Amino acid sequence: MTSARVLERLTAALGDRVVTSPDALDEARADKSGHRSDAPPLAVVEAASIDDVQQTLRIATETGTPVVPRGAGTGLAGGAIASGGEIALSLRSMDRVLEIDENDLIAVVEPGILNGEFGRILAERGLWFAPDPASKEISTVGGNIATNAGGLLCAKYGVTRDAVLALKIVLADGTLMSLGHRSVKGVTGLDLTALLVGSEGILGVIVEATVRVRRAVPGVVTTLAATFPHVTDAAAACSAITAAGIQPAVMELLEPTALAAIHDYLGLEVPTPGRTQIMVQTDGPLSADDARACLAIIEANGGVGEVAANEADGERLLSIRRAMHPAMEKLGHPLIEDVSVPRSALVPMFEAIQEVEREFGISIPTVAHAGDGNLHPNFVYQGDEVPEVIWQAADALFLAAIRLGGTLTGEHGIGILKRRWLEDELGAEQVDLQRRIKATFDPQGLLNPGKVFDPIV
Amino acid sequence: MTSARVLERLTAALGDRVVTSPDALDEARADKSGHRSDAPPLAVVEAASIDDVQQTLRIATETGTPVVPRGAGTGLAGGAIASGGEIALSLRSMDRVLEIDENDLIAVVEPGILNGEFGRILAERGLWFAPDPASKEISTVGGNIATNAGGLLCAKYGVTRDAVLALKIVLADGTLMSLGHRSVKGVTGLDLTALLVGSEGILGVIVEATVRVRRAVPGVVTTLAATFPHVTDAAAACSAITAAGIQPAVMELLEPTALAAIHDYLGLEVPTPGRTQIMVQTDGPLSADDARACLAIIEANGGVGEVAANEADGERLLSIRRAMHPAMEKLGHPLIEDVSVPRSALVPMFEAIQEVEREFGISIPTVAHAGDGNLHPNFVYQGDEVPEVIWQAADALFLAAIRLGGTLTGEHGIGILKRRWLEDELGAEQVDLQRRIKATFDPQGLLNPGKVFDPIV
Repeated sequence: MTSARVLERLTAALGDRVVTSPDALDEARADKSGHRSDAPPLAVVEAASIDDVQQTLRIATETGTPVVPRGAGTGLAGGAIASGGEIALSLRSMDRVLEIDENDLIAVVEPGILNGEFGRILAERGLWFAPDPASKEISTVGGNIATNAGGLLCAKYGVTRDAVLALKIVLADGTLMSLGHRSVKGVTGLDLTALLVGSEGILGVIVEATVRVRRAVPGVVTTLAATFPHVTDAAAACSAITAAGIQPAVMELLEPTALAAIHDYLGLEVPTPGRTQIMVQTDGPLSADDARACLAIIEANGGVGEVAANEADGERLLSIRRAMHPAMEKLGHPLIEDVSVPRSALVPMFEAIQEVEREFGISIPTVAHAGDGNLHPNFVYQGDEVPEVIWQAADALFLAAIRLGGTLTGEHGIGILKRRWLEDELGAEQVDLQRRIKATFDPQGLLNPGKVFDPIV
Repeated sequence: MTSARVLERLTAALGDRVVTSPDALDEARADKSGHRSDAPPLAVVEAASIDDVQQTLRIATETGTPVVPRGAGTGLAGGAIASGGEIALSLRSMDRVLEIDENDLIAVVEPGILNGEFGRILAERGLWFAPDPASKEISTVGGNIATNAGGLLCAKYGVTRDAVLALKIVLADGTLMSLGHRSVKGVTGLDLTALLVGSEGILGVIVEATVRVRRAVPGVVTTLAATFPHVTDAAAACSAITAAGIQPAVMELLEPTALAAIHDYLGLEVPTPGRTQIMVQTDGPLSADDARACLAIIEANGGVGEVAANEADGERLLSIRRAMHPAMEKLGHPLIEDVSVPRSALVPMFEAIQEVEREFGISIPTVAHAGDGNLHPNFVYQGDEVPEVIWQAADALFLAAIRLGGTLTGEHGIGILKRRWLEDELGAEQVDLQRRIKATFDPQGLLNPGKVFDPIV
């Protein structure tokens, strides 16, 4: 069927929720990965209801048209990028909080609500939602679920998967399906809820989520910052803190190039040029004791640190970390990598990064969620295309992470950008099995084709 | 191929690890559900290595012989019961701890190790494994993973799925596959590790697991017991404790018939006949404060309670709860149900149980993991067959749990016993999708046929 005929059917069914303005189509070609599709999609559907999603997918199935589900377009792996001939299905307008149950500590939300907005609504009731990607002010809860988003608090409070109890999804053929339950426990049949979390839009479209929320942690949050002469000393201190059994809520590491770029972006003077910084935040009733214990370990590892005077000062320190992405964007196009290794392997992973810097003659500004071994090495390039040398350097990084028992993506997903390494990590047999699972949900291969797996040619 | 020929091939490949003694075959026909298969399997393979598992499954695939993976046979849903013409594949002898990494808080184990034994090995290093089904002294870690076992500590410390980072599995055709990674985070491709947890042996045979372990929680454990005139008051107190934001490590509820049966079994006098008891255990540095806060809520809800003098007294109280299953077995054949509801629905769920007792004229001794809304109503019957009236009563219970937003099985699984309600909870379309996912792993349908899903006729 021609694109014109598909568009006609969509418009007949969905009216002005079918958008074809050049701006909207252009926006749907990109996300925050720096990647851009070859051509604009044939339309953006701004779904306002589950029924809109079902209608879109029924038309897609009947006409054999690919559909790219999309939240706020803040992904870092190209997972929500729409190309020519595809329908971009935006869930962004489905942004209501449908229910908050303070007794059961459950909330039911539509997928399009921004994580930060959801957090503010919960905070009014003394509640919070643990998944906190650095992008939380601009990314949606549905997108967080579709990518199993990580963030700063994961080591202590879990990844997004741990917070999702139930999902409503729409399959490629328009079928609405409810997965999971509202109870804490439940083992009826295969755990499709867990399978959908992190599935990057290739199995079904998430249209509603029942998530666990938490009561505000009692006590004050204590923040400390420390600097180290070498990045490996800082990494060793972080590993030593977790090995000592302390569970910081946040433990972030910024090596010198990252630190300098952020301070430059924020118009601030770098506290101690050339040194690596870590920021540790402890919470709970014993947060001050925990922070002191961290400081002792930091000093034993050659660091010099100080506890922030109050929560506001602490938040200011953390906001420096959160400015990493815009700081990189100011320098050029950042390709943000996302390797994750066992916590004890932080030092060899940083050594591997330094080796890649030397080998390829490039600088790799890096921040790490050091509490859970998740590193974000940034490759900054100019122009529209990722230079081949950067792909080669990234390749070396990925293989190092896998060799250390880790993974090439801790929280961003595979999308388009990391497809070529999927088989290095999973092996050909598992990739084949995963493709067959995808086909059980979506036999025509219409949902987010070319994402996660290479296109079938 | 004839059974004799299959047996010959197994023996040629695996020698004396192929067991055909009448006792061994008979044991493989049953588990702790009270259910027994129609006929003995053709052999029990006592696998000693991954290679043994692969060889068994290759022979099974080549000869079209069904295989029932089995741990210690303590399941409560008939999920590991082997029938005529099937191979029972026991993982019980693969019981080594392959690695404990105290820095990364990771352990690698073979599937056949008993949960309790693993716990003792970890305790020597000040570590522990959070999943703690009541059966932990007799059930295997592999079985716990295959059923996503729950237990007493789940509300605070998560279910088994939350503790599993990586699995090695053998597929029906003998292929060995590694799922997951050693890092805390990781989102490469679909989350097959999470899908395998709780899959009840129908997707693959778990031959190795990389699990998260924890450092011993600092501080003392505080235990309190309280009694209430009515079960619904006790349930309301439990809901109020969680709603207040207190996170007990353990919160168990025993209604009067259960309490009386356990005390009778242990040869003890029931503390207060006719009353419902709850046992609450708090841990962490503030455990005493938390226990006092629980006691205040208990008293406000009409309960009378007392904090145990010390940890030993507390453990004695908990051992009463752990004696529930043998106490029921003394009375006859127990059919242990396993509904789970949102925590705030504990009261209506207990009301539903009482209504079923009245309607069917039976007594349903019940204990509950009240901290997470998981109830175990027990139906005790005499003779070999579950009487039809009990199935009808169970049916009424399941539908009540689903109506309250819960599930028909919180932690035991579907196995054989709950197949007939699978579609009530999941719907026909989801059952069909789950069947197709099963077929991607096991196209011939050789792994644990007739479990979870009805046999295809």
